[in-house]
Amino acid sequence: MNFEDFISGKQRWLGENGPESEFVFSSRVRVARNLADFPFPNKATAAEKREIMDRILAAVKSVPRLRRCSVFRIEDLKEIDRQLLVERYLISRELAAKKSGSAVVIDSRGVVTIMVNEEDHIRMQALLSGLRLRECWEIISQLDDELECQLGFAFSPKYGYLTACPTNVGTGIRVSAMLHLAGVIFSKQIEQVLQAVARLHLAVRGIYGEGSESFGNLFQVSNQVTLGKTEEEIIGLLEKVVRQIVETERNARKSLLKTGADLLYDRVGRAYGILSNAHVITSREAIDLLSMLRMGVDLRIVTNLEREAINELFVLTQPAHLQKANGKELDAVSRDIERGNLLRSRLIKETQ
Amino acid sequence: MNFEDFISGKQRWLGENGPESEFVFSSRVRVARNLADFPFPNKATAAEKREIMDRILAAVKSVPRLRRCSVFRIEDLKEIDRQLLVERYLISRELAAKKSGSAVVIDSRGVVTIMVNEEDHIRMQALLSGLRLRECWEIISQLDDELECQLGFAFSPKYGYLTACPTNVGTGIRVSAMLHLAGVIFSKQIEQVLQAVARLHLAVRGIYGEGSESFGNLFQVSNQVTLGKTEEEIIGLLEKVVRQIVETERNARKSLLKTGADLLYDRVGRAYGILSNAHVITSREAIDLLSMLRMGVDLRIVTNLEREAINELFVLTQPAHLQKANGKELDAVSRDIERGNLLRSRLIKETQ
Repeated sequence: MNFEDFISGKQRWLGENGPESEFVFSSRVRVARNLADFPFPNKATAAEKREIMDRILAAVKSVPRLRRCSVFRIEDLKEIDRQLLVERYLISRELAAKKSGSAVVIDSRGVVTIMVNEEDHIRMQALLSGLRLRECWEIISQLDDELECQLGFAFSPKYGYLTACPTNVGTGIRVSAMLHLAGVIFSKQIEQVLQAVARLHLAVRGIYGEGSESFGNLFQVSNQVTLGKTEEEIIGLLEKVVRQIVETERNARKSLLKTGADLLYDRVGRAYGILSNAHVITSREAIDLLSMLRMGVDLRIVTNLEREAINELFVLTQPAHLQKANGKELDAVSRDIERGNLLRSRLIKETQ
Repeated sequence: MNFEDFISGKQRWLGENGPESEFVFSSRVRVARNLADFPFPNKATAAEKREIMDRILAAVKSVPRLRRCSVFRIEDLKEIDRQLLVERYLISRELAAKKSGSAVVIDSRGVVTIMVNEEDHIRMQALLSGLRLRECWEIISQLDDELECQLGFAFSPKYGYLTACPTNVGTGIRVSAMLHLAGVIFSKQIEQVLQAVARLHLAVRGIYGEGSESFGNLFQVSNQVTLGKTEEEIIGLLEKVVRQIVETERNARKSLLKTGADLLYDRVGRAYGILSNAHVITSREAIDLLSMLRMGVDLRIVTNLEREAINELFVLTQPAHLQKANGKELDAVSRDIERGNLLRSRLIKETQ
């Protein structure tokens, strides 16, 4: 599939409603692997990186799940197209910045992504809507087995899989869930949640914005430890903690409906009113308001909109997506205007 | 007419579009007069005040314009009803606070109001939509003549009409216009305008809010000097200055449409979006947003709303009006909620 066809197609995790998707935007499992016979990417020559890439892409072809996958070499992609993939959570900013010898493989449903020659030779992820960590792991585990047969991964009997950065050594696994905690934030319980998660040695970070600042009430919870625990243990812990956070969020929303309904309806109403009438709107404001609107839809405060439409707007209002849709580069002010145009027309269309 | 019928009827200056009413909400002329044979209200006994009131009300009956007027004794009005009259600019807060011996006479069209035993025995005003200071003066001048024949006003050949407060002595006239300066404020030219007006010894004050703070971009310009100038000179000066301010405002709006259209459309759109979707809204925010929406209607940015509907909402969203409409006393939080309900239902009705 060429890039334009791929990017204009619907992405599975955006258009679907997995379990608990009111609270869990998406689940993701990724593992880091390296070919035993080559230096890590940061030590490899250009020729070595090309050979690594060729070997991985050849191996990929024989994997049944990836039969109809798309393969994009990073150097072949325009800057804007790399950013599009970043905004869809399909590749990392690090991969997008690579010059040559790097590529990305994406399966036909946008669930499995393999980054080639990012920090490690292979970073493969499965991304699904809702709370489906085990399902993600099953996909990745099978893919890992299929590729390992052909490629031979760097593995130490003592440490496990070897990776470019020691924080990934062992299982090489990063399990994460993107949570929508609008109720917890609204009722000012977020600090408690963050502290509880930190005590379990899990990492929490905002999805947008820098550092601990969060836009749109979106948080990613993930494991920090990859060594000394099995994949099942790591996934089990994440799953348990995410379920606890989900319960906290569910209860926060229930309480808000009981004791703070006026303010909740007000915030949701204003979010809808501004999103469907503003002419100039920053990415930050749009994300914050879309978050409030999403909670409004989930709580049936807003009944003429679908969650999927809002999920999609989170992505379509990002800078690269806006520029792609307009067919040209846009400065920040023009983006804010086009973002307003997009939101107004989409929300009017959706609610009619 | 009883009070309930009167207050539920439409008020002329709200429902009409006088000249320049894009920029001039209303014109007003009031004069202060006192009966020659009685002490000023602050020195009069209760019995004297009653007699003053009786004489004035008797005289009023013979004035053709006031044949179908309403007469309300302040002591007979509930607190909420006094506040309603204040919110409609028909009586002053001072009159609303009077205990006994005070009354208000309002003609059938809500144009002429006579306050009895406020600071002076008589304060009569004419209030019209748009820039119609001369027309207001003609109404008041005729009324003044008709009442003077019967009542005999305190008058000094040297000073002119005598009043309780020296600032009104002479003509006893206060000429004012309520201006909607949303464009001047938006383009940050308001300080220049205020300074220019102050140099002409005219007073400018915000309509809502205390002191120099203005809500809703509404300002009242009025004369300060009542002595040593004829009524015609005072009205001529006011008219000239108001026309200059109107030009400044008109130009400010034109420039905004040329060079700041995106931001202007944005602010107007957001005002509409919030007003028609918020569930909790303070008086201050409502007035500010209604002001922006009014400018949007005047500039044809918003095309499915009438200026009169917005003018009416300025008044209907005030505390006493909200409580009257709900048939009960409401605390501040409940008022903010009822204000949201009113605005949502009205704006949805108007734009459908």
